[in-house]
Amino acid sequence: MFFASDNAGPVHPSVMEALTAGNAGYAPSYGVDQTMVEVTARLREIFEAPEAAVYLVPTGTAANALALATLSDPWQTIFCSSVAHIHEDECNAPEFYSGGAKLTLVGRGDKMGAEELHAAIAGEQTRGVHGPQRGPVSITQVTERGTLYSLGELRGLCDVAKGFGLPVHMDGARFANALVALGCTAAEMTWKAGVDAVSFGGTKNGLMGVEAVIFFDPSKAWEFELRRKRGAHLFSKHRYLSLQMRAYLEGDLWIASARKANDNAAYLAEGLRQIEGTSFVYEPQANMIFCAFSRAAHQRLHDTGAAYYVWSGSLEGADPQEALEARLVCDWAIERAQIDAFLDILRG
Amino acid sequence: MFFASDNAGPVHPSVMEALTAGNAGYAPSYGVDQTMVEVTARLREIFEAPEAAVYLVPTGTAANALALATLSDPWQTIFCSSVAHIHEDECNAPEFYSGGAKLTLVGRGDKMGAEELHAAIAGEQTRGVHGPQRGPVSITQVTERGTLYSLGELRGLCDVAKGFGLPVHMDGARFANALVALGCTAAEMTWKAGVDAVSFGGTKNGLMGVEAVIFFDPSKAWEFELRRKRGAHLFSKHRYLSLQMRAYLEGDLWIASARKANDNAAYLAEGLRQIEGTSFVYEPQANMIFCAFSRAAHQRLHDTGAAYYVWSGSLEGADPQEALEARLVCDWAIERAQIDAFLDILRG
Amino acid sequence: MFFASDNAGPVHPSVMEALTAGNAGYAPSYGVDQTMVEVTARLREIFEAPEAAVYLVPTGTAANALALATLSDPWQTIFCSSVAHIHEDECNAPEFYSGGAKLTLVGRGDKMGAEELHAAIAGEQTRGVHGPQRGPVSITQVTERGTLYSLGELRGLCDVAKGFGLPVHMDGARFANALVALGCTAAEMTWKAGVDAVSFGGTKNGLMGVEAVIFFDPSKAWEFELRRKRGAHLFSKHRYLSLQMRAYLEGDLWIASARKANDNAAYLAEGLRQIEGTSFVYEPQANMIFCAFSRAAHQRLHDTGAAYYVWSGSLEGADPQEALEARLVCDWAIERAQIDAFLDILRG
Amino acid sequence: MFFASDNAGPVHPSVMEALTAGNAGYAPSYGVDQTMVEVTARLREIFEAPEAAVYLVPTGTAANALALATLSDPWQTIFCSSVAHIHEDECNAPEFYSGGAKLTLVGRGDKMGAEELHAAIAGEQTRGVHGPQRGPVSITQVTERGTLYSLGELRGLCDVAKGFGLPVHMDGARFANALVALGCTAAEMTWKAGVDAVSFGGTKNGLMGVEAVIFFDPSKAWEFELRRKRGAHLFSKHRYLSLQMRAYLEGDLWIASARKANDNAAYLAEGLRQIEGTSFVYEPQANMIFCAFSRAAHQRLHDTGAAYYVWSGSLEGADPQEALEARLVCDWAIERAQIDAFLDILRG
Repeated sequence: MFFASDNAGPVHPSVMEALTAGNAGYAPSYGVDQTMVEVTARLREIFEAPEAAVYLVPTGTAANALALATLSDPWQTIFCSSVAHIHEDECNAPEFYSGGAKLTLVGRGDKMGAEELHAAIAGEQTRGVHGPQRGPVSITQVTERGTLYSLGELRGLCDVAKGFGLPVHMDGARFANALVALGCTAAEMTWKAGVDAVSFGGTKNGLMGVEAVIFFDPSKAWEFELRRKRGAHLFSKHRYLSLQMRAYLEGDLWIASARKANDNAAYLAEGLRQIEGTSFVYEPQANMIFCAFSRAAHQRLHDTGAAYYVWSGSLEGADPQEALEARLVCDWAIERAQIDAFLDILRG
Repeated sequence: MFFASDNAGPVHPSVMEALTAGNAGYAPSYGVDQTMVEVTARLREIFEAPEAAVYLVPTGTAANALALATLSDPWQTIFCSSVAHIHEDECNAPEFYSGGAKLTLVGRGDKMGAEELHAAIAGEQTRGVHGPQRGPVSITQVTERGTLYSLGELRGLCDVAKGFGLPVHMDGARFANALVALGCTAAEMTWKAGVDAVSFGGTKNGLMGVEAVIFFDPSKAWEFELRRKRGAHLFSKHRYLSLQMRAYLEGDLWIASARKANDNAAYLAEGLRQIEGTSFVYEPQANMIFCAFSRAAHQRLHDTGAAYYVWSGSLEGADPQEALEARLVCDWAIERAQIDAFLDILRG
Repeated sequence: MFFASDNAGPVHPSVMEALTAGNAGYAPSYGVDQTMVEVTARLREIFEAPEAAVYLVPTGTAANALALATLSDPWQTIFCSSVAHIHEDECNAPEFYSGGAKLTLVGRGDKMGAEELHAAIAGEQTRGVHGPQRGPVSITQVTERGTLYSLGELRGLCDVAKGFGLPVHMDGARFANALVALGCTAAEMTWKAGVDAVSFGGTKNGLMGVEAVIFFDPSKAWEFELRRKRGAHLFSKHRYLSLQMRAYLEGDLWIASARKANDNAAYLAEGLRQIEGTSFVYEPQANMIFCAFSRAAHQRLHDTGAAYYVWSGSLEGADPQEALEARLVCDWAIERAQIDAFLDILRG
Repeated sequence: MFFASDNAGPVHPSVMEALTAGNAGYAPSYGVDQTMVEVTARLREIFEAPEAAVYLVPTGTAANALALATLSDPWQTIFCSSVAHIHEDECNAPEFYSGGAKLTLVGRGDKMGAEELHAAIAGEQTRGVHGPQRGPVSITQVTERGTLYSLGELRGLCDVAKGFGLPVHMDGARFANALVALGCTAAEMTWKAGVDAVSFGGTKNGLMGVEAVIFFDPSKAWEFELRRKRGAHLFSKHRYLSLQMRAYLEGDLWIASARKANDNAAYLAEGLRQIEGTSFVYEPQANMIFCAFSRAAHQRLHDTGAAYYVWSGSLEGADPQEALEARLVCDWAIERAQIDAFLDILRG
């Protein structure tokens, strides 16, 4: 019963097979392997962006920090949600990679609103050289609370950014889950809405450790390459990143896996919805569920080894009937039986 | 006929099997997987260092840059060979990770001499706050020219460093190759000689992309963990790094693979030695050979697709009998038949 | 009628005389001038801190950024008010000098409350290496809104910081104004309350461009010296900084000047208080006044060349009777006649 | 008998008077004072560069580090002499301000030769993203050994840089001394030779602490302004920098002072030349002399309190007849009587 994260499950068997199959002989190192040529071509196809620059890095934090550093200057501030991964969970990696840029937190809930974003951007840089300068906007899709920006909302945020001449980055650690949930194309969710660069996640959706960074305008491509190397994220045996990504894209495995994950979450959510005393903190839209249930239920789940994060903190000596907030994440690999078992225990 | 580098060959089949075998179910992420516990225990055993702090990172540059940043301050200078990888081949990663430290280049050939090192260190920090302050010494073993520091030489360098109160880092991207060549223990080549932290290479010796960083004194361990996370080198699905490293250590695969690589290089060197017009720039000691042969021979090798680096630059219109300098690297996987073929073509 | 800032007025005549008087012959450079010895001794006396390390730098931003960088690590977050100068007005200098630390904004008004601070600190570092680590607390006294932390409030904030083992920095750009207003000793307002390092302002109180940085615990003194040099803030002709600071301290000129400034502000405030349609946004406590008056009044003041900042933004086509918020700063040099003239125009 | 440096003498009386004269009333802060308008106009005139961007900063290290950071990227290497101030005497300020760029040392003596520079630049960036990328060239004029680049040599170095598309910075901490010695125009010594940005020294030539940074192509001006602010080098009471610089330029005081300094040095050199056992390490060309004399002579000078740097280190128990190398610097203020006294003691 593992619902702690989608970063702890197995590598998809097809990906592992691809690694094994590609493991023969010698391949040019440092990103110029033939497989990468195919990956680039395929991602350009998927994104309908024949000029896009495509790179692979091993972690989502690397993807975000390198992309944002490439889009920003050290004297700027990056606009993002107050619960953004780049703010809360990367130990200042964006600040490090950008050479000391600031993050301006927009909104208090799961998402940034267009008006909030406008106010935040307008509020900066009214003081000449004194304040931080306006920098890129970073949008997380799926959000860190399991919700989605609709295409309209995305366009709204990008329009605000564009109105100020600012580039837009998308943290797509769960890009596929969002795409499946919205039922749109990759182009619609990115450059057609106004996104300039995207961290296209793979690790949380069945890869071992690969994320793509895609720049729709390749003018900053060489700078990115230098930043990647300098950041120690250019793999010598790069083919093993390429092999993972190729397998991920092949036959739309990425779509299928995300759909499975979302379906699992929907199944779990449906079960939760029918349990009295359980409520959603955010309405689940992809593969993450934030729900509240009693401490007594948590105790039962805890005793059976169910793994998930308690989000609201753990207060000693609290009333067992009091609710706590939990994050439940489903990946493609979780079994329905596990979900059923979880629900059974929760029911008490 | 691939002699370009030891970072382009296949992953050792045992390692690939270990990855496949370990690919089931869920494992705690971000470095607290059970396999890592075993890796730490085994490396402590190998290094006879029961208190050592052990970490895994995906690239050699990450290992070096993070280790050196942890050992240094931004206002210091790091002492290293003028041909060190950290100086020549990491796109300023040490400068980036250290927050702007300097590198002081010692010596002009393959190695630093103890007297040169002493002079270089003594020459810094005679100007109070004005000059850079003295920082760590970084030793590359195997050197970038395929030669080795003897245990006596290592102790000599470390003694100089210790005399100034400076920590010592070893860039052991080819640690195993050195160990096999010297026939000593891991402890003898590191902490018993005076080394404080080591980048323990795996990628060039049959792994997909894993290096260990080992601090013999764990007092800086937590700082390293924060630097690793902030540098975006902490894998969420860390078990796949641990699985590689465990397989690497199991049954001394690392030793066996390095021995194979060294033996292949010795076989190639023996062949080269018997070809007239061919000479060694450095006497080969591990798995890298720097040798000179005629441009005409290079042309023949080039035409058959033999892969290796020309080290001395490529001058247009040069005399075909003139010698150029080539770097030939053997890994564990190169076949003897390939070496024989290479020698045949070289013979003309 | 200059109320725009206390950083635009003249150097106090005594200070200018001291510069002229000290301008003869040669003096040791880079901070080891004899005058600096006297400055250090005098500041230790004033602060009742005989072991304190004392340094001079030319700007307030340098004082703050260097002090905070010395007290923090790049993976930490610095806790400060949401209107702190280090956040709003230093173009990411703290982020730059610290190597990429973050700022966590506490509270929404002029001050941080102890409970807010506690909640903010408690809210960080519950995620191991993932979130930013807890770093120093920075308190601005006088606040950026012209108000004061009482000694009790200061102790309250410092107690919270100490409870988490965090160091405390005070941005005392208007230290003297605060001291005079509180009627306490320098020791009471700093280390006796729990402050570890203070930016002791001079520039806004009659100097040309000098601030002292004082560390009550000198253990980080050498690091500060290196950071100051590396930041290019160590003056070669340092005696001219020392001469200013010595003159500032001599005969308690700093106290007298701050008292004048505060008295001028009190006189202005008293006048404002009696003008109908004028109200205070914050109750003035030192030498800065945030007050609201009508746009029509602003227009009159503007037409006569009165200089001050409009704080609430400038809306085109607004109702002339609508209020706007202005910041009025008095320094020691402003003449009462100017204040009277300002009040006359405001009265209409 | 102070020959230790030109950074320890008095501020020129005219400059001090200008500071006093300008010390009345209020002036716009942060660089928009009216005096700065005049300074910019005058420097553009002097440099025959009507579009140049002109900035003032308080220290030479700030001028160099900010200019170089503006001209470089963090993944580049800056080419400079092995004895450059930016390498030896700024505690890694260029590395800090540039965000981790490297310095490549060219030559071993006082100057870089054009061929050496060409070889050094050509030697970098043959390894794609692996090595540091080629960055700006920094030329020190007067050199750190008191010698001069002729206009032809300057053009030669700049031609090499331009051939590689690299910008050129001039560290002109002693710009005026060089100009006077060469008898050329400021334009000839800078942009007409190919220099893109210059640190135009004032502090070593009679100012309290002001250097100008001049960009002949203003396209990076705004970036420089942000870097200056972020580096905490933008003075609030900026007029006091402007006043110094205006006085420095007025009536060509800068030229007259440099001429005095050079003449003083020539007078000293002439005296030294006639003392047996004294020889020049470098032929003096401006206001710095590197000469050798016996340890016995040094002992006599030391006993009378003569101040200068011993350059060759101090060996205990050495033969008193053995020569040591000393650096003797003359500024505009040193009196001939002091020089005569020095020579007398040296004569023994």
